[in-house]
Amino acid sequence: MNEPATAIEAAVAASPLHQLKDELDIVIPTIRNLDFLEMWRPFLQPYHLIIVQDGDPSKAIKVPNGFDYELYNRNDINRILGPKASCISFKDSACRCFGYMVSKKKYIFTIDDDCFVAKDPSGKAINALEQHIKNLLSPSTPFFFNTLYDPFAEGADFVRGYPFSLREGVSTAVSHGLWLNIPDYDAPTQLVKPLERNTRFVDAVLTIPKGTLFPMCGMNLAFDRQLIGPAMYFGLMGEGQPIGRYDDMWAGWCIKVICDHLGLGVKTGLPYIYHSKASNPFVNLRKEYKGIYWQEDIIPFFQQVVLPKDCTTVQKCYIELAKQVKEKLGKIDPYFDKLADAMVTWIQAWDGLNPTSASFSNGKTG
Amino acid sequence: MNEPATAIEAAVAASPLHQLKDELDIVIPTIRNLDFLEMWRPFLQPYHLIIVQDGDPSKAIKVPNGFDYELYNRNDINRILGPKASCISFKDSACRCFGYMVSKKKYIFTIDDDCFVAKDPSGKAINALEQHIKNLLSPSTPFFFNTLYDPFAEGADFVRGYPFSLREGVSTAVSHGLWLNIPDYDAPTQLVKPLERNTRFVDAVLTIPKGTLFPMCGMNLAFDRQLIGPAMYFGLMGEGQPIGRYDDMWAGWCIKVICDHLGLGVKTGLPYIYHSKASNPFVNLRKEYKGIYWQEDIIPFFQQVVLPKDCTTVQKCYIELAKQVKEKLGKIDPYFDKLADAMVTWIQAWDGLNPTSASFSNGKTG
Repeated sequence: MNEPATAIEAAVAASPLHQLKDELDIVIPTIRNLDFLEMWRPFLQPYHLIIVQDGDPSKAIKVPNGFDYELYNRNDINRILGPKASCISFKDSACRCFGYMVSKKKYIFTIDDDCFVAKDPSGKAINALEQHIKNLLSPSTPFFFNTLYDPFAEGADFVRGYPFSLREGVSTAVSHGLWLNIPDYDAPTQLVKPLERNTRFVDAVLTIPKGTLFPMCGMNLAFDRQLIGPAMYFGLMGEGQPIGRYDDMWAGWCIKVICDHLGLGVKTGLPYIYHSKASNPFVNLRKEYKGIYWQEDIIPFFQQVVLPKDCTTVQKCYIELAKQVKEKLGKIDPYFDKLADAMVTWIQAWDGLNPTSASFSNGKTG
Repeated sequence: MNEPATAIEAAVAASPLHQLKDELDIVIPTIRNLDFLEMWRPFLQPYHLIIVQDGDPSKAIKVPNGFDYELYNRNDINRILGPKASCISFKDSACRCFGYMVSKKKYIFTIDDDCFVAKDPSGKAINALEQHIKNLLSPSTPFFFNTLYDPFAEGADFVRGYPFSLREGVSTAVSHGLWLNIPDYDAPTQLVKPLERNTRFVDAVLTIPKGTLFPMCGMNLAFDRQLIGPAMYFGLMGEGQPIGRYDDMWAGWCIKVICDHLGLGVKTGLPYIYHSKASNPFVNLRKEYKGIYWQEDIIPFFQQVVLPKDCTTVQKCYIELAKQVKEKLGKIDPYFDKLADAMVTWIQAWDGLNPTSASFSNGKTG
């Protein structure tokens, strides 16, 4: 049933998307040897990896031979960012966003080290990265729903009644992929449904409509760094922080309101990866429980956020958002004051490492 | 490959959804003999049919033996509604909405007579009505997007980061099904892609988020008449009118803003039917061309409609909408004045035939 790796490699090399290999970095946060890359070798070996080592920096992380990579541990992060390193989480996979910052490429694909190659219903190995690139290179349609899903997919189009003026779409900033096998459930749902596995292969990509928030998972995610990178901050989680497992959620709320404001698109659906290992629900509950009640206030906050017209860059939007977080969410817990400050530090650190992007204007406001 | 009809009948009779057979009418607009029902017999024979005969009332429409039905032709419509019959279109399948009005049941399933039973990827015949009923009986989630689609589907749930306060969902008012084979394209797309067929089976149902409009197709549609019936008006199309093929679109825009206002849900996705026959793109172009440019103004109008708080019933919402249509769309063309008047007539006719529902209050406003 398995295709030979060489056949996959040949197909990958022949793909027109392969030309992007110099424009895309793969960011992997980890605390262990990256044996999981063996399964991804035919798909990912042509690309450059940015490995963000979490936890003990004295531990050596083994990377399979033949992969081109750079690796940063906590000492590196502290050395590169100095006091601004405080905005990068420790002992939490939220540290991955450091990799977004040090990359110099246009696109980022980030994946967890417990994610493997999934198969489609015909048994064929799914080239997740290729699908993400397709998603990012084709427009999004956030202003009106297309009932046949992605109108730019092969064999699909806009249906009757879709306004012609909206068919050009907008640039896609984010591609959110899904997971077969272990679904991305919160601790209470894990506890209640320990045996539930996701086996439903939904053959669709769709744009999340303007004005609608979604729970963005960081396990299998790609984005256009030039369009939205400075908003892809995974917040303060892990050691010394009152919550965990809300890093990607935080980034998802922030990027969505900023994409909506700047007229950029967010897609979800294909590609699937195979998620192998459920995290411990008891540990998760401890990390999540404050988030579970805080989100009841955070989400209405993000649903109501309005960014002023003069926020014409991602950085300006993000600084404005930090201000509103401090004003409106600071009341919930002092944590949000600290988070708002870290959001500002993150932008300073980003602009320090990416000097030309600081004044870069993205798309139209709206 | 085909299952024996008796096996399907046994499965249909055994389904817990079968209990709804006394609470659901099937509405079919037609100008021809209903031979297409033969293929649907195992699924639809237990249900009552309301056939709305369009065109020449002297023509006899043959219905296959064994189906329980009532049939209305133009003479019947004129007799029952008197002068108010002016709100029911003639020589256009928009006439189907008369069937919604005369029904006394809680649920409606409406289907076109060129739609056949589709098969799922395993080759199994799809019981479209059963899926519609499942969609209508389970809640909708319009306030936040669930990345694993319908959280009430088997094997699925709300993902991490979905607010717990929103997991109860809201009542589902509309279930919009899709089409394999001939996609529901407008005339320009039909002309450009005459051979395109929809072969993608997307195994998903999803709630269309609050604030997002969609192109509702009337070919394969079910709804809760008690919750949204009076808004399911298919407008003025066909003979004597400047446009056609916008009947279901009009209804879709109206029901969506009213569902959003009343806190009701609209789902799209499964079930698929097999759409056999593409309509003539040249004829369609003549019917559609005014709609194609009018919709560029109509859709922004519906995107901006605000219904006042005291619109607590579907009827009140619809009368208010008629008022705003007259004010805001009347400028585009005198047709919209006439349509706004017909919307009011429709509600009067509805309330005349459904006296107890006139003061019925649905759900919460907001």
